[in-house]
Amino acid sequence: MKDAVVGIDIGGTFTKYGIIDRVGNVMMEGSVPTDQTDDINVYLTGLNGAIDKTAAELGDSVSIMGIGIGAPNGNYKSGSIEFAPNLKWAHNKVVNLVTLLHKHFKMPVAVTNDANAAAIGEMIYGGAKGMKDFILITLGTGLGSGIVVNGELVYGNDGFAGEIGHVRAKDNGRMCGCGRRGCLETYVSAPGIKRTVFELLAEYNGNSELSKYSFEQLTSEMIYHAATRGDKIALEAFRITGELLGIKLADAVAHTSPEKIFLFGGLAKSGDYILNPTRESFEKNLLKIYQGKIPIVLSSLTEGNVAILGASALIWQELNKQ
Amino acid sequence: MKDAVVGIDIGGTFTKYGIIDRVGNVMMEGSVPTDQTDDINVYLTGLNGAIDKTAAELGDSVSIMGIGIGAPNGNYKSGSIEFAPNLKWAHNKVVNLVTLLHKHFKMPVAVTNDANAAAIGEMIYGGAKGMKDFILITLGTGLGSGIVVNGELVYGNDGFAGEIGHVRAKDNGRMCGCGRRGCLETYVSAPGIKRTVFELLAEYNGNSELSKYSFEQLTSEMIYHAATRGDKIALEAFRITGELLGIKLADAVAHTSPEKIFLFGGLAKSGDYILNPTRESFEKNLLKIYQGKIPIVLSSLTEGNVAILGASALIWQELNKQ
Repeated sequence: MKDAVVGIDIGGTFTKYGIIDRVGNVMMEGSVPTDQTDDINVYLTGLNGAIDKTAAELGDSVSIMGIGIGAPNGNYKSGSIEFAPNLKWAHNKVVNLVTLLHKHFKMPVAVTNDANAAAIGEMIYGGAKGMKDFILITLGTGLGSGIVVNGELVYGNDGFAGEIGHVRAKDNGRMCGCGRRGCLETYVSAPGIKRTVFELLAEYNGNSELSKYSFEQLTSEMIYHAATRGDKIALEAFRITGELLGIKLADAVAHTSPEKIFLFGGLAKSGDYILNPTRESFEKNLLKIYQGKIPIVLSSLTEGNVAILGASALIWQELNKQ
Repeated sequence: MKDAVVGIDIGGTFTKYGIIDRVGNVMMEGSVPTDQTDDINVYLTGLNGAIDKTAAELGDSVSIMGIGIGAPNGNYKSGSIEFAPNLKWAHNKVVNLVTLLHKHFKMPVAVTNDANAAAIGEMIYGGAKGMKDFILITLGTGLGSGIVVNGELVYGNDGFAGEIGHVRAKDNGRMCGCGRRGCLETYVSAPGIKRTVFELLAEYNGNSELSKYSFEQLTSEMIYHAATRGDKIALEAFRITGELLGIKLADAVAHTSPEKIFLFGGLAKSGDYILNPTRESFEKNLLKIYQGKIPIVLSSLTEGNVAILGASALIWQELNKQ
């Protein structure tokens, strides 16, 4: 009988889960909708049933040891999802997912936020294997971060460490969903680079293939494709985005001095378009003692099931502690 | 026979040392000049001889177990002092102090920078006893920081973590000794608040009791005393200094989410004049999830021999690991 765990990735629209072995093979996967109810019990009845059914298909060949969850605003220390704006059943309250899932499955359960889960995934299965100090940045609808120090994820006193997306990038800068202004993720994220393109379209009076899209239509993928075709506005938007990211990563280094920085998520798929300006600005802005020794690289985990892999890595790590 | 260690605090002008027991009693202390030679061997011959003499005075009642050193640019991981601008015998090179002292004393030796030593001192003897996650900020001729995560000091991959004084506080800001512009310590430190006073004197055309001092004469103590007498420029300088410190401490929280933040060093002695504007700006700039739960307090270690206490705490911690 083979040991396995369940990795769950809770997104605003879908919840994906997989049954995963120790080396990161996803043996089975499935998904349920996240946004069909604002009643956590209704949601969990659906999720638990789906997982039970998938596990039953694997039969006695697999022994499920625990459940790891990556979720927006997931707090490892409290086991809860706390005031997650994009989750209907947790947007205005604290939901203790660990307690609720443990009640049904009677096995160890752990939760953390999606960026932390990705960092643990990188550490267990990816390019950070054996690394003691690194930072992983997720560039998606927001900017998330998982910080590892002395081989352990930094959760902080309250379980909410690693919110580099909310450091101040500009005084009196763009409005952020958190209610403050100038947060890094309002510039460096998929919506962030879109906002930059719209500023540039305003400044240069169009003159870009991106001029034909509405704010609702434009995506970071479109900006990437325009950049590959040499569109000046798109290229300038990547330059500005990378420049700011480089400055703030240089500041992050002054906190925890990592061995490497990994970029992950939708915007990271733009490869050199985001990497080159980020690296250039990073090196220029680093304190001398750090210069030339901290590579910024793309995550070695490809997207797709990486979020459930990360969630599974979280619970493998817990099980290894026991 | 009582166990003790030697704590050494290397400053630009003097090197202070003390022989200290497990609970932080300084049994003997002494000092030698730091700046009389640029030959590390000459310096160490003097220091080693002085320590030997002091230890001999304590006689057989005390058994010395190890030596801890706090020094500018002291690197815990390499055991070296690396390119320390204010140390004549290390300003342009790497000096492995751990190896050199071990050769003479034949006992465990550890070195770290002064802010890290102060943080360990706070953890072993001071207000951070039993605390797993905290940040200590030293406000002196620079801004130093010691970051503790999961009960351990964050040294980072290269031993140089915790340089919050060199995060970017302003784009195209003041020239910093590190060669870059806008570093936090160019605003928030003893020289930083002096620079702010000079900007304000320029802006308001004097109108302050501080108008009568030259740049060379003015000290942060004078600014503090002027503030206690209600001098508007001095008060405004504290407000500006605290505001920037609060913003950057809010960013630091987004990295490691500490339980408490301790302020230490010359400028921290200004008490409420620096604490009040810092706390106000800090709370205003924190991400909502962190608000109202992270006190900023003065270090509970009084100055004087605190630097040698911190250095002794470093080596006690090493000895406890064995």
